[in-house]
Amino acid sequence: MPNRPRRRSFIAATPAFVSGQDTPRAFLERCLGEMDAREKDVLAFVETAIPAARAAADAASARWRDNRPLSSIDGMPVGVKDVIETADMATGMGSPLFTGWRSGWDSASVKALRDAGALILGKTVTTEFAASFPGPTRNPHDLTRTPGGSSSGSAAGVAAGFFSAGLGTQVVGSILRPASFCGVYGFKPSLGGINRGGSHDYMSQSCQGVLGASLADLWLTVIEIVTRTGGDPGYPGVAGPMTLPSPKQPRRLVALETPGWGKVGAPLKAAFEGMLAKLRAAGVEIVGRASAAEVSQVETALEEALPLTRDINGWESLWPLNIYAQRDASKLSPAMRQRFEESCHMKPEDYRRSLTRRAAIRALYAGLASGADGCISLSATGAALVGLQSTGDPAFVVPGSLLGVPALSLPLLSEGGLPVGLQLLGFEQKDAELFALAGAVEQILG
Amino acid sequence: MPNRPRRRSFIAATPAFVSGQDTPRAFLERCLGEMDAREKDVLAFVETAIPAARAAADAASARWRDNRPLSSIDGMPVGVKDVIETADMATGMGSPLFTGWRSGWDSASVKALRDAGALILGKTVTTEFAASFPGPTRNPHDLTRTPGGSSSGSAAGVAAGFFSAGLGTQVVGSILRPASFCGVYGFKPSLGGINRGGSHDYMSQSCQGVLGASLADLWLTVIEIVTRTGGDPGYPGVAGPMTLPSPKQPRRLVALETPGWGKVGAPLKAAFEGMLAKLRAAGVEIVGRASAAEVSQVETALEEALPLTRDINGWESLWPLNIYAQRDASKLSPAMRQRFEESCHMKPEDYRRSLTRRAAIRALYAGLASGADGCISLSATGAALVGLQSTGDPAFVVPGSLLGVPALSLPLLSEGGLPVGLQLLGFEQKDAELFALAGAVEQILG
Repeated sequence: MPNRPRRRSFIAATPAFVSGQDTPRAFLERCLGEMDAREKDVLAFVETAIPAARAAADAASARWRDNRPLSSIDGMPVGVKDVIETADMATGMGSPLFTGWRSGWDSASVKALRDAGALILGKTVTTEFAASFPGPTRNPHDLTRTPGGSSSGSAAGVAAGFFSAGLGTQVVGSILRPASFCGVYGFKPSLGGINRGGSHDYMSQSCQGVLGASLADLWLTVIEIVTRTGGDPGYPGVAGPMTLPSPKQPRRLVALETPGWGKVGAPLKAAFEGMLAKLRAAGVEIVGRASAAEVSQVETALEEALPLTRDINGWESLWPLNIYAQRDASKLSPAMRQRFEESCHMKPEDYRRSLTRRAAIRALYAGLASGADGCISLSATGAALVGLQSTGDPAFVVPGSLLGVPALSLPLLSEGGLPVGLQLLGFEQKDAELFALAGAVEQILG
Repeated sequence: MPNRPRRRSFIAATPAFVSGQDTPRAFLERCLGEMDAREKDVLAFVETAIPAARAAADAASARWRDNRPLSSIDGMPVGVKDVIETADMATGMGSPLFTGWRSGWDSASVKALRDAGALILGKTVTTEFAASFPGPTRNPHDLTRTPGGSSSGSAAGVAAGFFSAGLGTQVVGSILRPASFCGVYGFKPSLGGINRGGSHDYMSQSCQGVLGASLADLWLTVIEIVTRTGGDPGYPGVAGPMTLPSPKQPRRLVALETPGWGKVGAPLKAAFEGMLAKLRAAGVEIVGRASAAEVSQVETALEEALPLTRDINGWESLWPLNIYAQRDASKLSPAMRQRFEESCHMKPEDYRRSLTRRAAIRALYAGLASGADGCISLSATGAALVGLQSTGDPAFVVPGSLLGVPALSLPLLSEGGLPVGLQLLGFEQKDAELFALAGAVEQILG
């Protein structure tokens, strides 16, 4: 077993950039040293841009030395999931149909990151078209295990200390699940929270988000992007302060079981219950399906989260899967071919019914906001499984995707010595409030 | 002055395909004959795919002969606005930054059209990035005049009889304005009505739509697309019968002046008032700002339609304009550079305020549905202007874009012997109802 991997927070290092004890270039070199040692095993990257990153780090170092950084993330090394376009690197989408494909342009988020001074260190492994067929990436905590997906390389790269933040996308569980398995922080914003321009994830639940080394690395990466490029067209985008929101202790949290709870082993259940006890001891009221009828209703509705998500995603992925299949179906994985065949039998009227049902479940969940500050849950049914074939069970994280609400995974739990995330769910457009809540939860439990 | 151009309805010809008196191949050859005679003057196309269209027309002819057409538009020649991707042709977006650029893939709508048997005859001229800087296309009714924009080539091509339907996009007035100027039918669906996958129009008010030779050519093109590929992800998409909705006489229509009314000359005003009189005589009640307080409120709110649209579009086009400007700002038109510079001074919080205001105006307009079947108005302040520099005033058509409601332009008016459109506006997701209403209006006025 390798040395225990260590997250590397850029934000924690910035005071030393100001004082002159450290520089973004030195920070980058520590990342590159870690990559030299471990990337051959972890396989987080599809492609890197190290010379450009070094040049950008030098420029950032000079700005911090002059106390004139472009932003709070000036010089931060970032990995970019390989469904998001970059001008200087290919965008392969985890598919042989796109290996080496270059759009030649930066996505909205990548352009914003560069304008903020961040270093685009490389493109990170994604599953095939950000769905389920896995890439080669391994879990830095145990190379025999999956890192989770679909934002596999971004999660593994943060876990291994290769970079402080990685862009990801989530339509089912593609940010929070790998965050859980890799022991990093993960954030999926409110629907439309980060501009998806130039990112190849077209589905209506899909959201761009971030995996990072700390809450501060997450928040500042997101807010520096959104300040420069907004959310999706038509959406307000993540709003909040230009510093990490101050911790604010919740008055009441809903403990959500979700359809995942029945799959959780006794020791992890006990660990989660222990955390709830600690929160209660600190003065946070915890309500659950047993104590509140409105929670019970939401829990029942969330039993539909996965099948409804699959129906919605199925219709929404008919295009472009039809043009991919027409070009060369043999280059789609068997799972993707099967999804496409199922999609071909779907009808617009079925899809409309699914949208109506989703809207009703969202309204039901939104009703919880009058009595609670957020929800607490697990991020996964357990630690990452052995083997790379499956990216894991999304039962705990698909609700946040279906609901379109902000969701955070904090690396505060473990099972058998391997990380498991604690999940916090907020309410739509209350992204900053979720970070304030998470800060308080982390103080109580950390 | 050339011969008066003649629209060429494919749907009107289909009975003859079934009876064997005509074939889609012969129909195509008539279109190609018209192109031979007039395309050198009209300049509707950026690129054509005539051999492929002929082969597809032969296949469609065989299917009609066997009475087994793939769809009601099997063999229909279609032009595709050059911001929408096609596997076999470049997508130049009216910009020297993209001249000859090939994605290599069909957009969702083009794939659906091909699956329905339609012939993708060519890519049609768009203004620069579907905004205001014009292309070379001329108005087939008077070559000294603008065809309108931004869907210039699709409108001119339908007007000249080169094809029966052209795909367009509208975020301000880019379908209905050229439809008005070129004397063709134009339809902008409810927001999200046609899947925009593979179309380079990212803005929140933007909508894919169709310019066509008749109401039937419009409706069947739209419904055959949406049945196969849906609307935008998260939207129900245009819904309705697989045949043109039967005419249904409205009980009451709102006559909307919009900010355009003050710019209209007396003869066109009189012609419009004459149409209202005919509708009244047929039993349709007409209400306006003078007779109904709720209409007056909407009219007042619509004074904001253009400035609010410009603010929203400005923020939403910051990306990708920033990456275009970074690559080579000299390849952007002066107008586009100015838009980009203005966008650079916008802030997310201003954009959020604009979204809130837009939502309020949409709610106000939606309130009209309880007392009226739709709205009637002009599509333009007058006939197309001389010169190609300006694509015309969008005062009458920007309200439909801001509101996200279905909008039709019918070529029923004229000014100085040149076409002007009559505009009908419906209510969100009531696209089929708007066609039923339009059919009745056309029967009364035609």
